[in-house]
Amino acid sequence: MKIIIERAALLRSLGHVQSIVERRNTIPVLSNVLLNAANGELSLTATDMDLEIVESVPAEIATPGSATAPAHTLYDIARKLPDGSQVELDATGDVLTLRSGRSHFKLGTLPIDDFPQMAQGDLAHSFTLTVSELKALIDRTKFAISTEETRYYLNGIYVHATKPKGGDAPALRAVATDGHRLARVEVPLPEGASAIPGVIVPRKTVLEVRKLLDEVAGSIDVQLSETKVRFAFDNVVLTSKLIDGTFPDYERVIPAGNDKVLEVNSKSFAAAVDRVATISTEKSRAVKLSLGRDLLTLSASSADAGSATEELEIAYDNTPLEIGFNSRYLLDITGQIESGTARFQMADGGSPTIVRDAQDATALYVLMPMRV
Amino acid sequence: MKIIIERAALLRSLGHVQSIVERRNTIPVLSNVLLNAANGELSLTATDMDLEIVESVPAEIATPGSATAPAHTLYDIARKLPDGSQVELDATGDVLTLRSGRSHFKLGTLPIDDFPQMAQGDLAHSFTLTVSELKALIDRTKFAISTEETRYYLNGIYVHATKPKGGDAPALRAVATDGHRLARVEVPLPEGASAIPGVIVPRKTVLEVRKLLDEVAGSIDVQLSETKVRFAFDNVVLTSKLIDGTFPDYERVIPAGNDKVLEVNSKSFAAAVDRVATISTEKSRAVKLSLGRDLLTLSASSADAGSATEELEIAYDNTPLEIGFNSRYLLDITGQIESGTARFQMADGGSPTIVRDAQDATALYVLMPMRV
Repeated sequence: MKIIIERAALLRSLGHVQSIVERRNTIPVLSNVLLNAANGELSLTATDMDLEIVESVPAEIATPGSATAPAHTLYDIARKLPDGSQVELDATGDVLTLRSGRSHFKLGTLPIDDFPQMAQGDLAHSFTLTVSELKALIDRTKFAISTEETRYYLNGIYVHATKPKGGDAPALRAVATDGHRLARVEVPLPEGASAIPGVIVPRKTVLEVRKLLDEVAGSIDVQLSETKVRFAFDNVVLTSKLIDGTFPDYERVIPAGNDKVLEVNSKSFAAAVDRVATISTEKSRAVKLSLGRDLLTLSASSADAGSATEELEIAYDNTPLEIGFNSRYLLDITGQIESGTARFQMADGGSPTIVRDAQDATALYVLMPMRV
Repeated sequence: MKIIIERAALLRSLGHVQSIVERRNTIPVLSNVLLNAANGELSLTATDMDLEIVESVPAEIATPGSATAPAHTLYDIARKLPDGSQVELDATGDVLTLRSGRSHFKLGTLPIDDFPQMAQGDLAHSFTLTVSELKALIDRTKFAISTEETRYYLNGIYVHATKPKGGDAPALRAVATDGHRLARVEVPLPEGASAIPGVIVPRKTVLEVRKLLDEVAGSIDVQLSETKVRFAFDNVVLTSKLIDGTFPDYERVIPAGNDKVLEVNSKSFAAAVDRVATISTEKSRAVKLSLGRDLLTLSASSADAGSATEELEIAYDNTPLEIGFNSRYLLDITGQIESGTARFQMADGGSPTIVRDAQDATALYVLMPMRV
């Protein structure tokens, strides 16, 4: 293999693929990127056995061929080369030589045959999402993904299609929960998605897809089976195994009939929560909300630090109520309220509360209360 | 004590003083800032017993008095209050109440008498430095301060006055070394500094002074004794104990008669060192310099990662030479070469090398070679 490629193109692609590569690997070849040069293109592949990324970039191919080389090292070199330079990659025997200007690197390679290829399988379902739809599905839910490894079936985003019900149009839904809060968001059901299975997309895949979304415009092709999902962007394809588990029946934890409704400016609310939480203990981060007629009092206290209270004007005309929440969870959710008005629907101080954007019915959040 | 103060002024001062306060303290009152309100000013004092900062800010004093309150918590609150707001601080009994808008905080205080006051002592020597002089003394040396706690006498910058010698005017010198590299910089001896003792200013003090230098213009008054140093800015006074130890006779390690002189563009050199070092082992960071007639070849290799070489055009007309250095040390020093041309004076591959800015005689660096 011998090619010449622009440093900027190489850097951009290596930036994407090296992100998949773990820092420590028990299987050495997983630290490498598979380079394959043919037909005027260099393709770069990286994998951690669960998630695979393939990206193609135009290159001048002198000799077609393949090689695997250390992904992070190649990325570091490309990063440090001067802007605008050309890079020659030449793989012979078990050495990859990189030349650029008067720089000259020799990197050890590993056999191409050792590089694990993800079985392609049959991805029967196929649909298209816009960048903004996929961003919404991820951004509005990812903060609620559980990090508890024992509850592996919560370590991702549950995606499924809803059936038309009552007046509601069918939707593609994403749900995440860690048992303390739940986030549910939906977009109009795209063509081809009505018969998809419910699947759990792992956190790492979600985060890598999200990174790529900042660099693309247009739309993303999604392909799906019971065990795999594939996201195809312009020149990047991500294929990921799905989490093999059963997502809990989340509808059961969304309360119906919460009749105490509080509307509040989400920015002022978030700023007040953040201030008052300065005093809450590092561990609980608890903040108490006390609702009176058109007045919300936020408070926190800790044996060490003292106490804090702040008053906010709100729209509320129901019976007084006291309820406690983890301030970080409140901030995560209010950070997603784009219209500027958050609507809380509460039952009582011991029951789950629903939070929504007052102007946007597509997202719904459930927060478990804390004893305060 | 009861005062009203602008949030911006309070935040700025708390930002300075909380930086001195350690995150963990065995003596509880050391986590606190001492507030003292009198004569239209709030003064804030923080200390770690070795370093004390006192800052004064204008405030509206309703009731003069004093209190101590948790420095980091106060700072966090001030940071989170809205821009442009006014803050009321009211200390009664063992509680400090902070009010701003509809926010209300109660913080526990500790007795003022417990707050350690640094003995003022007699600081007999006094001189003035400009901001740029003090910046030069610190920036050109601080990277070489040792972090080895057992060699406590190297954990700071050694400052002393030189006598006029030959044609050289007397100077105020700062020196730091960690045994692998040495940095020496001088500024014209200010009036009042000719009889100062040689003193070692601890790293923490150096770094705190350096932070403040970014915010002031004009000049800094320095007062000095055998055991203490004081830096007085506009409205901030830092008083620090000095390191009680003997700085080694650093002149002994500055080689004389290094006759192999290499001049190189410091930016291109640094970029090449950084690239080649991608391949050197994480532990040694070694880079080899091979000097031939007007050609420098940088190289690095590691059993794991492979090898790297890069060529640079230089001005060199002496006998060929090979020498190895820690790439990080090379980058630290070349980062200080402002003129753009670095001059290396070498003897051989096993002896210390002198590095200077070709256009600036005030700074001198010594680098120990590494076996490569």
